[in-house]
Amino acid sequence: MNTFEQHESGVRSYCRSFPAVFKQAKGATLTAENGTEYLDFLAGAGSLNYGHNNPVLKQALLEYIEADGLTQGLDMYSSAKEYFIDRFHKTILKPRGFNDYVIQFTGPTGSNTVEAALKLARKVKGRKNIIAFTNGFHGCTAGALSCTANQHHRGGAGVSLNDVSRMPFDGYFGEKTNTIAMVDKLLSDPSSGIDKPAAVILETIQGEGGLNVASAQWLKDLRELCNRHDMLMIVDDIQAGCGRSGDFFSFEEAGIKPDIITLSKSISGYGLPMALTVFHKDLDVWTPGEHNGTFRGNNHAFVTAASAIDAYWTDNLFSNDIKAKGKLLRKRLSRIIDRFGPESLKLKGRCMMSGIECPSEQIAADIVKASYEKGLIIETCGNRDQIVKCFTPLTISNEELERGLSLLEQAFTDVIGRLEAAAAS
Amino acid sequence: MNTFEQHESGVRSYCRSFPAVFKQAKGATLTAENGTEYLDFLAGAGSLNYGHNNPVLKQALLEYIEADGLTQGLDMYSSAKEYFIDRFHKTILKPRGFNDYVIQFTGPTGSNTVEAALKLARKVKGRKNIIAFTNGFHGCTAGALSCTANQHHRGGAGVSLNDVSRMPFDGYFGEKTNTIAMVDKLLSDPSSGIDKPAAVILETIQGEGGLNVASAQWLKDLRELCNRHDMLMIVDDIQAGCGRSGDFFSFEEAGIKPDIITLSKSISGYGLPMALTVFHKDLDVWTPGEHNGTFRGNNHAFVTAASAIDAYWTDNLFSNDIKAKGKLLRKRLSRIIDRFGPESLKLKGRCMMSGIECPSEQIAADIVKASYEKGLIIETCGNRDQIVKCFTPLTISNEELERGLSLLEQAFTDVIGRLEAAAAS
Amino acid sequence: MNTFEQHESGVRSYCRSFPAVFKQAKGATLTAENGTEYLDFLAGAGSLNYGHNNPVLKQALLEYIEADGLTQGLDMYSSAKEYFIDRFHKTILKPRGFNDYVIQFTGPTGSNTVEAALKLARKVKGRKNIIAFTNGFHGCTAGALSCTANQHHRGGAGVSLNDVSRMPFDGYFGEKTNTIAMVDKLLSDPSSGIDKPAAVILETIQGEGGLNVASAQWLKDLRELCNRHDMLMIVDDIQAGCGRSGDFFSFEEAGIKPDIITLSKSISGYGLPMALTVFHKDLDVWTPGEHNGTFRGNNHAFVTAASAIDAYWTDNLFSNDIKAKGKLLRKRLSRIIDRFGPESLKLKGRCMMSGIECPSEQIAADIVKASYEKGLIIETCGNRDQIVKCFTPLTISNEELERGLSLLEQAFTDVIGRLEAAAAS
Amino acid sequence: MNTFEQHESGVRSYCRSFPAVFKQAKGATLTAENGTEYLDFLAGAGSLNYGHNNPVLKQALLEYIEADGLTQGLDMYSSAKEYFIDRFHKTILKPRGFNDYVIQFTGPTGSNTVEAALKLARKVKGRKNIIAFTNGFHGCTAGALSCTANQHHRGGAGVSLNDVSRMPFDGYFGEKTNTIAMVDKLLSDPSSGIDKPAAVILETIQGEGGLNVASAQWLKDLRELCNRHDMLMIVDDIQAGCGRSGDFFSFEEAGIKPDIITLSKSISGYGLPMALTVFHKDLDVWTPGEHNGTFRGNNHAFVTAASAIDAYWTDNLFSNDIKAKGKLLRKRLSRIIDRFGPESLKLKGRCMMSGIECPSEQIAADIVKASYEKGLIIETCGNRDQIVKCFTPLTISNEELERGLSLLEQAFTDVIGRLEAAAAS
Repeated sequence: MNTFEQHESGVRSYCRSFPAVFKQAKGATLTAENGTEYLDFLAGAGSLNYGHNNPVLKQALLEYIEADGLTQGLDMYSSAKEYFIDRFHKTILKPRGFNDYVIQFTGPTGSNTVEAALKLARKVKGRKNIIAFTNGFHGCTAGALSCTANQHHRGGAGVSLNDVSRMPFDGYFGEKTNTIAMVDKLLSDPSSGIDKPAAVILETIQGEGGLNVASAQWLKDLRELCNRHDMLMIVDDIQAGCGRSGDFFSFEEAGIKPDIITLSKSISGYGLPMALTVFHKDLDVWTPGEHNGTFRGNNHAFVTAASAIDAYWTDNLFSNDIKAKGKLLRKRLSRIIDRFGPESLKLKGRCMMSGIECPSEQIAADIVKASYEKGLIIETCGNRDQIVKCFTPLTISNEELERGLSLLEQAFTDVIGRLEAAAAS
Repeated sequence: MNTFEQHESGVRSYCRSFPAVFKQAKGATLTAENGTEYLDFLAGAGSLNYGHNNPVLKQALLEYIEADGLTQGLDMYSSAKEYFIDRFHKTILKPRGFNDYVIQFTGPTGSNTVEAALKLARKVKGRKNIIAFTNGFHGCTAGALSCTANQHHRGGAGVSLNDVSRMPFDGYFGEKTNTIAMVDKLLSDPSSGIDKPAAVILETIQGEGGLNVASAQWLKDLRELCNRHDMLMIVDDIQAGCGRSGDFFSFEEAGIKPDIITLSKSISGYGLPMALTVFHKDLDVWTPGEHNGTFRGNNHAFVTAASAIDAYWTDNLFSNDIKAKGKLLRKRLSRIIDRFGPESLKLKGRCMMSGIECPSEQIAADIVKASYEKGLIIETCGNRDQIVKCFTPLTISNEELERGLSLLEQAFTDVIGRLEAAAAS
Repeated sequence: MNTFEQHESGVRSYCRSFPAVFKQAKGATLTAENGTEYLDFLAGAGSLNYGHNNPVLKQALLEYIEADGLTQGLDMYSSAKEYFIDRFHKTILKPRGFNDYVIQFTGPTGSNTVEAALKLARKVKGRKNIIAFTNGFHGCTAGALSCTANQHHRGGAGVSLNDVSRMPFDGYFGEKTNTIAMVDKLLSDPSSGIDKPAAVILETIQGEGGLNVASAQWLKDLRELCNRHDMLMIVDDIQAGCGRSGDFFSFEEAGIKPDIITLSKSISGYGLPMALTVFHKDLDVWTPGEHNGTFRGNNHAFVTAASAIDAYWTDNLFSNDIKAKGKLLRKRLSRIIDRFGPESLKLKGRCMMSGIECPSEQIAADIVKASYEKGLIIETCGNRDQIVKCFTPLTISNEELERGLSLLEQAFTDVIGRLEAAAAS
Repeated sequence: MNTFEQHESGVRSYCRSFPAVFKQAKGATLTAENGTEYLDFLAGAGSLNYGHNNPVLKQALLEYIEADGLTQGLDMYSSAKEYFIDRFHKTILKPRGFNDYVIQFTGPTGSNTVEAALKLARKVKGRKNIIAFTNGFHGCTAGALSCTANQHHRGGAGVSLNDVSRMPFDGYFGEKTNTIAMVDKLLSDPSSGIDKPAAVILETIQGEGGLNVASAQWLKDLRELCNRHDMLMIVDDIQAGCGRSGDFFSFEEAGIKPDIITLSKSISGYGLPMALTVFHKDLDVWTPGEHNGTFRGNNHAFVTAASAIDAYWTDNLFSNDIKAKGKLLRKRLSRIIDRFGPESLKLKGRCMMSGIECPSEQIAADIVKASYEKGLIIETCGNRDQIVKCFTPLTISNEELERGLSLLEQAFTDVIGRLEAAAAS
């Protein structure tokens, strides 16, 4: 048994698929202790949109640390925080019409910003119920977990997960079923049994749940539904935000404005723990310290976060580049599908948050395993882990992207070829 | 309005007491943008036991970053994590009799390790109820918040906080009342109305709740009570651990072994977000990924955490030094009490987690304000914020400690003197 | 102010629609203190299927009381209880294939048998979640209320109503939407967010919810769904049972066998409080007294209940008579609809549990008012109280039924005529 | 197997101690089918304070039924209900200072009036938490069960029983511990972890919990505590009310006025299901029908209830007689204690709600068994069923009371004698 097997809890998970001990990382490349290099199509589960140890951010961070910049600041004012707020407001919020939105620095995890968003919505509306969607994932602390759909995670709660009504996501009951109309009927019926909600919470592109995409029209309809039924709209953009969809926020394409936005994962840009809850200032009913947490002032993350905004978001170049890469990615994935199973495989997701749905969890797992053996780190997602999910750094070069996709294609060849051979024999 | 007032949520809190914009920090000194220096008796609410930007840890961190060491590793194996596990096991766990305990890396916040501990205890025992104590603080996410006693924080939940039975902490009903006997009676009575608990969770020295100290005997009795009633004992050592009490774990003095220990705050040593749940391997019933979180692999924190262990915990020198400083601190606090109100003021806490209880919240707030004006950052705690809480870095020099205490004494002079003058006039 | 207005809580309800003070009652006729007679199309909300003070049952009750038969027996054995069990088993359960079902005498209210059913299902399956349906009504005590859909009643709870997942009843999303398929998809998807249920609870014909009828096919599909997903099927036959549908149990037509059946309302036959939970003996995991209640041994009710079984259920005559009356009722209701609004009015329900849906709550209320003024007592139901609900004693004579329906038709003439006149002017 | 064993659920309970099949009953005598007579020291668990088939009430009931008086009236006005309200107001409420209290007719069970009381208190105060006491019993429906302390009943819930804080009853921690002061401290401390309650609910003499008596001073202190902390005081007088304590309400001796009173069990006087929630009219915030239930208009019960008031409560004779019998009862019980174990046995309760605490559940069970064999029906109560509880009809003759107590004394002789013989051998 190695150190991990001896002394770390069995709750560890990714290391079971990728058992190398990683030492270094740069851009889209991970290097194990034994020198083996891996292309990274996992990107810290979406927390490394700018790649590992991005040199621009790294430089800013090193200078900050060397100068003894404040590291841990609780929620005191700091120069680094001021600069981040200023850049985030001016470069991200204001140009997108969120001039009147304020920023809450929560404990530096996705589940923490979700918990803050839920508390705030319930306090503002004075109601307990929250609408969450099928296949949604919002974190594993008890409040966030109530909104998370996955049974594997829910089962670990040990207590009832309550005060949440589950509704069907866009397309859940097939393309022809208008799920917004269903929710509308339930909320309009005083005897539907659905208590009036304070808010809805959703991912526009469900990450863990299977790269299910809410259409722009569905999002617009949901926004309108929220207005009609006096509910707040919380977009959990923890995984789909920070450029993953091609825009900074995943909902920009739909032209909607959520009331509350949760951000984490790639907001620091460097993989450092950080989370924000962003909401309209009219909703800012918090009393001082009402929701708190020791690490809400992680200044290292503020430094890299501001640096990432300055480096990537002051103009459209990065956004355009992501969109172009997204096209390339989806084209190549379509080719794999056409080649290995136009009927059994399915293209999922949007832009750089795309993947291939396999006929079974086993096939997807085999492909992940075959990929890893070829030097490609890639994970699965979906309600049955049946989807191979391409989640590269957004800064990946076209060459690396193509190379990784070729490895993936070889993995499909190995796995599907073997299946076909088995079927033929 | 400054940037913060304009764009940050009103939930911000510490900045209201200490409105300087901090730029740099070193050891026990914070430096504002305008150059003013402040002595830090707050220490990141206990997350900076080794001081700001501790040079040993800083050096290790800089080298790691410069070498493109893996930053964000999810729960994959990494060299930095392996080294940390090894050092933590060999230097901390093993010598203290925790050889058979495993480490869970949770999301990097205190509330996250508490949520993991609660889930695990409920899963192991197949019961829902948890015993938590009066004046306890365990975090603000919904599961942790159920255990937190403070009404200000509980009120923000927006939903019922359930599946927790509240019991009186040591001394809560006065010195003569044996609160363990009370709990024993309630748990032994099949009609007490207290459902059989999976676990108790407690701080041995209540931080936010008012520096209330559980005696060694009470802790032993509680340990025995847990055995007798088949409950797990969870010690939340997030604030009192990592040397604050003079030992690495706060419960060492009592000679007990909790079943589950939660650590965060100073575990990284550098103020970086990190949290651990440590428990006996027999309790390790997690399935892979059952409780997860993106930032559970914050390798920067692993680097500084291991570095802190190597620098401070391989022998008894640091521990002895803390205990000596604790004596000095409490002696000086006693002097303040003797001088300004032997009947109205009260010494609270233990070792380097000590403070003075004031007759009112207003007096405590005035002392914090007067201290800040003199260049000392210090906060209050307690059920009514009536306690001035000295929480210096443990690495503070005696000179700095004495200087800070002199500033504090001057603040008492200002505030209490003013009160006495007012009373006399 | 009269005695009631002065001294009774404002929670009183039916008396607001029918403010007479009633003194006597016989069959389908209620007589007020001032001698005015009213035809009763309300039938104690379904608790008087055999009419007021049914002479056969009355005789049995009088003899029992005169002979000092045991009145209140807790759950001790009594002659009256033995006789009831015997008759209920031999005449009702056994011939319908429920030979292996046992009877639990719960507290004598509908909500109490529902609470018992929910507890039992959760205990048997070791799960908490229950599936209840849109527009369902199951009572107002906290456990039952969690399953009740109506917001007016739910709003009175004062606490969260949890551990229930709400699903669409047959036809809820229109005739073309297969709601069983929807539930199946949600239960088959490990990431739907619907925790695995212990049971489903439903009314086959929703009484308060608006006379919504589950088709025989839907019930069969639901039965099959329960088998497939290892859930118990609880049919709440409190209102639709005891002959209301034409058969003793409302689900007989569909040929299904629920795992648990709740009965109350007309089970005593005389309007006396009584309730049963009937379930397969394999589910009988109760420990003695685990669910109890003082009045679970209401022997007066056992006497009239047995008497009703003997008088009405030993052959098919009564059943056939109900079905014939149901046809007559629905024919006459259809005529009213054809006459006053074939497009705006809608026939609802099944057999002697039928009514007319009006375009608005106001119109329905006006019809109730106009009916009362003509000497007909009839109530509304439905999610917006928009349905006029004919709920006569099942023993009503054809003459009385016709007379009552004529009064109802006159009320429609008054109300709809007035509307049309208003529209024309 | 007899009919019951074959066809009734194993949840049945009393019949296990008293397996006779009872046919008739009169006053304090139960007669089995085989003609054996039993003295009844159980009195329908307190629902037969006026004895079985009390002739005065019986006559009124027979006349009412013969005259076809309205039986089931939902919450419509009826002559019988009007007369009951008038008598209850004039004879019971008004003379005791409850002139401004209104009456809610709930579903006819104790748990239903408790559920109504809890809902009302939560609605009035806009808070969720309720304080209930150790060893309290308030019923088995989910809302009431949350307040019930007994683990046997709580364990059957299948879900968490929440929104209730458990506090120690008078004397729970010994005579010297002031439990009101404890509750006061917890409610005055903003960090105690006890959420501000809407109400307290209590029995003044705990029936199921072991005949624990709240002293008059404790009740006064609790009333004052409720005022100070803005909580409603709910006295659950279901078992201790209706004369059991010597006064109509059990709290009269203490001179306090609860805000809400729950009544059931003996309120109908004849053992018929009936329940009331009585509260100050200022608290009457119900909307019509917000809490409802089919059998809230059990007119048979109204008839006997009014008749009982007229027969027993228009002057002090009955009350004085109960008090005299209570003295006799307790004198005889003391004699048994002195004779069989002045150190091991203990007199419990108050007035006609008294009993003897035995050293073990086994001894108490043996005494119940021995009594039954001698023709005396008597049950146990207490957290461990260790208390033999004398609960005779209040109308029992002194001769019957003495006779029953002699049988009980013989049972003690048998059981304790056997024990002593065993110890001596």
